Amino acid sequence: MSSKPIGIFDSGVGGLTVLAAIRRLLPHESLIYLGDTARVPYGNKSAETILRYAEECCTFLAKKGVKAIVIACNTASAHALPYIQHRFHFPILGVVEPGVEEALRVNQSRHIGVIGTFATIQSEIYAKELKKRNASVRVSSVSCPLFVPLVEEDWCDNEVTLAVAEKYLKNLGRDGMDALILGCTHYPLLKKVIGECLGPQIALIDSAEAVAISLQKCLALSALKASDTFEGAGVELYVTDLTHRFETIARRFLEGDIPEVKRVTL
Amino acid sequence: MSSKPIGIFDSGVGGLTVLAAIRRLLPHESLIYLGDTARVPYGNKSAETILRYAEECCTFLAKKGVKAIVIACNTASAHALPYIQHRFHFPILGVVEPGVEEALRVNQSRHIGVIGTFATIQSEIYAKELKKRNASVRVSSVSCPLFVPLVEEDWCDNEVTLAVAEKYLKNLGRDGMDALILGCTHYPLLKKVIGECLGPQIALIDSAEAVAISLQKCLALSALKASDTFEGAGVELYVTDLTHRFETIARRFLEGDIPEVKRVTL
Repeated sequence: MSSKPIGIFDSGVGGLTVLAAIRRLLPHESLIYLGDTARVPYGNKSAETILRYAEECCTFLAKKGVKAIVIACNTASAHALPYIQHRFHFPILGVVEPGVEEALRVNQSRHIGVIGTFATIQSEIYAKELKKRNASVRVSSVSCPLFVPLVEEDWCDNEVTLAVAEKYLKNLGRDGMDALILGCTHYPLLKKVIGECLGPQIALIDSAEAVAISLQKCLALSALKASDTFEGAGVELYVTDLTHRFETIARRFLEGDIPEVKRVTL
Repeated sequence: MSSKPIGIFDSGVGGLTVLAAIRRLLPHESLIYLGDTARVPYGNKSAETILRYAEECCTFLAKKGVKAIVIACNTASAHALPYIQHRFHFPILGVVEPGVEEALRVNQSRHIGVIGTFATIQSEIYAKELKKRNASVRVSSVSCPLFVPLVEEDWCDNEVTLAVAEKYLKNLGRDGMDALILGCTHYPLLKKVIGECLGPQIALIDSAEAVAISLQKCLALSALKASDTFEGAGVELYVTDLTHRFETIARRFLEGDIPEVKRVTL
């Protein structure tokens, strides 16, 4: 048992979808969220820079005394997870593996699609992790660099966003595909528009719930879960740059009240 | 006379339009360009963070022994110019004033439009500078946060970009307007699309040429220009994050050969 907090970080606001899922599943856990808003987005940066940023974010959370970290950013999970796991001596979870396992659970056709940032798709992490578990699965992927700016602009459901989605998704060979991994924590906000482009036969896989379940198992295995009677659970929100937009979007992601957002320098 | 280099910096690739204009007008000057690609974009960051980034970029250029700096980024010019001018003891030019003066030169109707990033428009710098010079001028402005990601994605002229431009520009009261300031160094790449939305009666003011002319005057006044016989002039390109996309876009902005791009940590 441990009442220490769990750290969650993302390049910006996208990881708040993961925070929300964890809070729903594990209401007795204290959560500390860090959004690296001073350097968002990560998806158009190089592997070397993404690794450095991920390490700095985890160091900040480690100093806060966390018992585990969830890298709630696909780009950082794709490029930095093994290095970060080696660097810190407590459990570190990424969002790629839970998404992969959920997709394989749902998928029947052996053809899975993946969308993500430029850096995530270039890393080919999803194809590697899918094929490691099932060598016969076919993977088609395409990067959608404008999806993050569209979500940050709060254009989640308009005709422009639909046109952008159609332009990206027409490049995805979709014959027989029945599952699409939303390989970026911002993308669940675009589910409606992506669903309109692809039709109901393709299930949209959002890793947020799957990550929360993985975390629950991990805490149980490592005897780190908080007591079910622990009532000190809360959420702390930190950002590296404080803008009005973060609070607005955080309020939408967390569906209601949010704690005071504090700015920190890494 | 001084054969020392001139420093130019931007959050990313947009300032290369300014570099290109300076190189055309002042072929005997050595130029050092810094693109802060590890932290791009600046336009959605807070004033405090933009100021810190601008100071770090100028410190890097100062250490390179520059005789003057051009802040080739509207967002940084809007938030950091007076502070940076106070901090360093050589001429520092921004892109706002030259753009303002060019707009007032062209404009007849006394109604001028301004488009820029969220941070630039929020600063109201263009309205202040225009009204300081002509109190009767009317200024209408709108922020276009998706324009920078669209240029970085190389979607400068397609139906999606046109739809985005129409959505933003319909919010700009345009009655009698005859000049629109492109208040971001990325936007000249979108001139065709913006022109299609607004029609030929509105002149699009791009500050790149105007900045080059201001710099020429400034160097002459401060006796800092290079000799017309100086043949050591060259261009050095530095970035804080090295991605393939920078080189691709740099090649387009500079229309041809580019020197080796070097990565630096600030």
